[in-house]
Order: sequence, then C-alpha cells, then structure tokens
Amino acid sequence: MMRYRELLPFLDREPAMLPLVTPLVTAPRLAAELGLGSLRVKDEGCQPSGSLKARPSAVAVARAKELGFATIACASSGNAAISLAAMAAAEELEAVVFVPERIPRPKLAQLQVFGPRVVVVRGPYESAYALCEQACREFGWYNRNCAQDPFLVEGKKTCGLEIGEQTAAEPPDWVAVAVGDGCTITAIWKGLSESAALGIAPRTPRMLAVQARGAATVHDAWAENRPLAEVESRYADAATFADSIAVTHPHNGDRAVDAIRASGGAAITVADEEMSTAVLDLGRSGVLVEPASAAGLGGVRAALDSGVIAPESSVVVVGTGTGLKSLDHVARIMPAPPEPVEPTIDALRSAL
Amino acid sequence: MMRYRELLPFLDREPAMLPLVTPLVTAPRLAAELGLGSLRVKDEGCQPSGSLKARPSAVAVARAKELGFATIACASSGNAAISLAAMAAAEELEAVVFVPERIPRPKLAQLQVFGPRVVVVRGPYESAYALCEQACREFGWYNRNCAQDPFLVEGKKTCGLEIGEQTAAEPPDWVAVAVGDGCTITAIWKGLSESAALGIAPRTPRMLAVQARGAATVHDAWAENRPLAEVESRYADAATFADSIAVTHPHNGDRAVDAIRASGGAAITVADEEMSTAVLDLGRSGVLVEPASAAGLGGVRAALDSGVIAPESSVVVVGTGTGLKSLDHVARIMPAPPEPVEPTIDALRSAL
Repeated sequence: MMRYRELLPFLDREPAMLPLVTPLVTAPRLAAELGLGSLRVKDEGCQPSGSLKARPSAVAVARAKELGFATIACASSGNAAISLAAMAAAEELEAVVFVPERIPRPKLAQLQVFGPRVVVVRGPYESAYALCEQACREFGWYNRNCAQDPFLVEGKKTCGLEIGEQTAAEPPDWVAVAVGDGCTITAIWKGLSESAALGIAPRTPRMLAVQARGAATVHDAWAENRPLAEVESRYADAATFADSIAVTHPHNGDRAVDAIRASGGAAITVADEEMSTAVLDLGRSGVLVEPASAAGLGGVRAALDSGVIAPESSVVVVGTGTGLKSLDHVARIMPAPPEPVEPTIDALRSAL
Repeated sequence: MMRYRELLPFLDREPAMLPLVTPLVTAPRLAAELGLGSLRVKDEGCQPSGSLKARPSAVAVARAKELGFATIACASSGNAAISLAAMAAAEELEAVVFVPERIPRPKLAQLQVFGPRVVVVRGPYESAYALCEQACREFGWYNRNCAQDPFLVEGKKTCGLEIGEQTAAEPPDWVAVAVGDGCTITAIWKGLSESAALGIAPRTPRMLAVQARGAATVHDAWAENRPLAEVESRYADAATFADSIAVTHPHNGDRAVDAIRASGGAAITVADEEMSTAVLDLGRSGVLVEPASAAGLGGVRAALDSGVIAPESSVVVVGTGTGLKSLDHVARIMPAPPEPVEPTIDALRSAL
C-alpha cells in the first residue's frame, strides 16, 4: 500500500498492519474450458484476515489514529468487521463492531478473537447499521462504514492500482467484480483509471459487475437506466447465500452504475448454484474463494454465454475473500469422499 | 521466493503460484504484558492456501515439472496436502493425496476443492504415509514428503531468509517455532544462518523449539542429550489437539535437535491449554493462527517463566498457519457472546 502513497490523500504514518500486494494467479486450463484468451485471478484471500477489506480497514485505522480517535466502529457481520477488528488490534485502537443477532456462531468467534467490543443488535442488519451510525455521532467514534468515509475507497482502489501494474504487459479486456454495496467495484475502477491515466497501464478494461440474482439492484438500475431508488424495493429480502453481496439497499450503488458506464462495461446476475460451481472451478485452478467472490467468475461464464464478453477475451476476476471462512459451504458442495482403501499397493492399484 | 533465486539450488522456471513475502506484525502490547523488549509475529497465514507449506509445495511442484513428472504425491491431512493440492492445480500437475480415514469432513472438503485425487487409507496416519511412499516408488510419482525431498527444506528456508532481512535493523534474540516433524525449524534456521553468513542479518538468533507436551520427542532428545530413537517410544499416541505438530516419530527430528544446538537455543513443551491461551493472545494483536502456531508463543511465555528467555529480550514467533482452518477450535475457546441489545442509543448506553 505504501508503494502508492503519493496517490493516497493521507497516511503521514504507516499502518501497523499493512495490506499485501496480492498475487495474480493464471488459470490457463479454466480459460481454455471457457473459451477465453486468458483468465487471471486476483487473490485477495491472501490479505491479513483473509479479504480485500484489509485495504480500507488499514486506511480507516490509520486515519483514526492520525486524527486522534480512541475508538473506531463499524456495522458488519463479515469481512469488513473482521478486518477492522484485526487491524484495530494491531494498532491498539478500540474497535466496536455492531452485528445483527442472527450472526452465526463461527463468524462471531472469528470476530471475537481479535478482541473488539461486539454489540449484538436485535433485528436485521439494517438495525445494527443504523445503531452504529447513531453511536458514532453520539459518542464521537470514528465511523468505518464504507459509504460514509471517502478514504475507504482510496484504500480499496490500491487493488485496482495493483491490477493495472501487474497486467501492464498484457492488459485485460474485462475485470469482473462481485457487487453488493457498490464500494468495491467503484474503488477498483478508480484504481484502474488512475493506473491508465499515469501511463502505468496502457488502457482501462471494461468492468463486469456481477450480482446475486436475489439482490440485483445495481444490475437492474444499470440495465433499465433508472435511478437505484426506483428498483431497490424489488429486493426487500436479499435472496442469496453469498452474504458478502446480500445487499438490498446498496449505499454506493449509483457510483457502481457510474463505474460500469464509464468503463464501457456491463452488469449481469448469477444464481447461487452458479456461484457454487464457480467455487469449484476456481478451486481446480488453485484458488479457494468465498461464494461472493466466485460470483465474479460465474458472471464471466454467463457473460460469455450471452455474448456480452467476446470469445478469446482476456479477463481478470477479483477474488475478494478467502473461502476458508466458509468451509461449511465448501463441504456441502463437494462430492462424497471416496471409500477408504486398505494400506496395500494392490488395494491402491484397484482403487485407481 | 524468486528474490532468493541464487540461494535456491533449482528453479529454472518460475512456479505458477508463488509464495508471498509475508508480513512481520509487531505486537507491542503483548510484548509489554510478557515483559519482552519486542515481539513480532511472522504471519505465514497470508500465504496462498494459508500456511508456510506454500513455500515447500511451490518448490516441489516446480521441481516435479522441471523433471518431467506428471504426478506428485504426499501423505498428510493438513497444511502440506492442502498447499500441494492448490499449487499442483495451479501448475496443472496431477496431485495424489493420501489421508488417514479419520480425517474430519471439513478438512477433507478443503483438500478436495483443489481437485487432487484423494486416497483415504484405512488405519492411522502412518499407514497413509507408508502407502504413499510405496506408491511413489511403484508408480514413479514425485514424492513430496518433507523428510524425503531435500529441496523442500530449501523452499522452507526462504521464511528464515525473509526474517533475517525483515529484522536486519533490529535482529531478534530468539525465533520461536512450533516443532512437529522437525523440518520447519531446521529450514528456518538454515535461512537465518545464510542470512547472517551473507551479511544481510547482523547475527543469528537462538532458536526456541516448542513442542506439544503430548508429542515431545525432539524436546526430550535435546533435553536428555539422547538420540531420537531412544525417546520416541514414549509418545505412542500424539496426545495433543494441535494436529500440525501431533507427530510421534519426527522424520527430521535429529536435524531439529542440531538446529537448536547450533543456534545456542532451547526446546520447551506446552500443554494444549497454553496453545489456546496463545491463540487468544495473538488474536488480540491482530493475527489469527492455528493452535500449533500458537504453541510458539505459548513456549515463549513458558521460557520467560523458567528463565530460558531473559526479560526484555526481542522475540520473533513464526505463525506457521492461519487459524481460519480451525474456526471450530476458536469458537470453543471464545467466551459466550454478549446478550443482544435493542437498537436504541439508550439500550446501547446501558449495555456499554
């Protein structure tokens, strides 16, 4: 992250826990299967605490320290909260995390281990979010909710800057990103644009915004050319198991639509089963991602089928988070394990 | 890894999936609590597939490709197998993984997702290991069992080279590593020695080898100055829940003892509860590690108590693997979550 210090409007001091430059993994076999010219996966699962959210959380925590805050808060039951709790622990800053009461126990444990103050809020996610906002105003806490703090987009854009630099020799035609709140695609597009403006990347790619079919506000607003507010009532409940993108009222949805348009890109939706298939596809290329991240690849497949992406295109999929946090899902979609064999070479030969 | 190419006796071609330079996270609050001058954690959980084993697996896979093998095999139900399966998938090499029949379902799913051929072998781990060895000889597969392939130590030593370079300005007095088979501590010591020999690091640290009390062959051999073979019968069953170091017959145990001696270091044992405490200690510093990795910190605490490590020393603990693979353990050791609060500022104020 400090590599791009001049492009970040902050950071007089270096964060205690720095996000990493994550690898871009090539997937030639999968590219061939799909009929793509090339397919690369940006593996953000390697970040500290396992997701791209390490980038904005590092920025938020560093900003909070610079500005003299003692406490930083966010509402989330997922990657944002986990990365905030980890980064705040490393900076010795108090973190307060607001989670909905239905949060699964393993996810809560993941959060608790970093020692934040966890506030379990009755009601749905929106109640936790609203209470967090109110508490930040009331108690003077630093507010790390992505739609509230423009500096978070600056942190996230470093993912786009890295993709621009890592693909400079072979720039992709498309960059596919799963979309929930709209912050991530907006920020990655910003990074890719700056990379091209600075001459680091030769050009910008088209952005493919991929949403879960059961929570597709950004897609619909883009496809029908209507304001977000006119379509979001369709998704009263987010009907998808991919919790990282199960967002009914995207806080940065309009900016996401702008990013898609500015890049000459497109939006597309995928069913949950397509995400599960994509988890397995990416696994066979050596990268284990969470279902929401796999949506990116599922969208590429759908976009190839519908002619949105031309055959032989060059594509980068952003793997926003590791699949290690959702191993229960992985266990459900894997085939039954093979029968045990006796420990003899003959038994093995028969089994093979 | 390619940074150290001249120190690696192989690698004409770059592996498809490269291990990362992992962060060294400072833990000033925990250092102060323990009475250390400084405490830093080498967070190998950021590696692709979540452990230090990415380093030797990348080397094994690259070697296998260079030498023209089509298939690579190992026996393991943990990080070694998972990293091998991921790296082999990225290199489009067939991986065969031998696992004991008692492997838990989530762990098997983690392995299966990368698409290796999984051979479930009746009997204990030793049966799976023996069958793997036999199969490699019989079918001409590349054998990625750590004690068999000296190149794996070369891969692992890059962790020591990195520590040497990252701590050059403030070299640690001690580097603490959990010990199972003995390969990892041997290799990290090799890297640290080369770093000092080349003048990158100003000196070598002492090595603290930490073993589970229920599987402490290396510790006993070192403490009693006896050959490994004379003490390993004491641990017929590995009595620890830390599976990554639950080793009764360490394949590189003698080399581990040599590394401890050569560094002027020491060995120490910890109970399982000390590992659980250390998982929480490291979590509150922002790093979530698996129980076996936490043993390293548990050993530092015990070594401070017994006077092996002097107060105000500077210590590096190697976090060999992420705790995200063992969230069930994390959930068990976390305190019960707080009661839900109503979504009002007054309810929150009372709860705080």
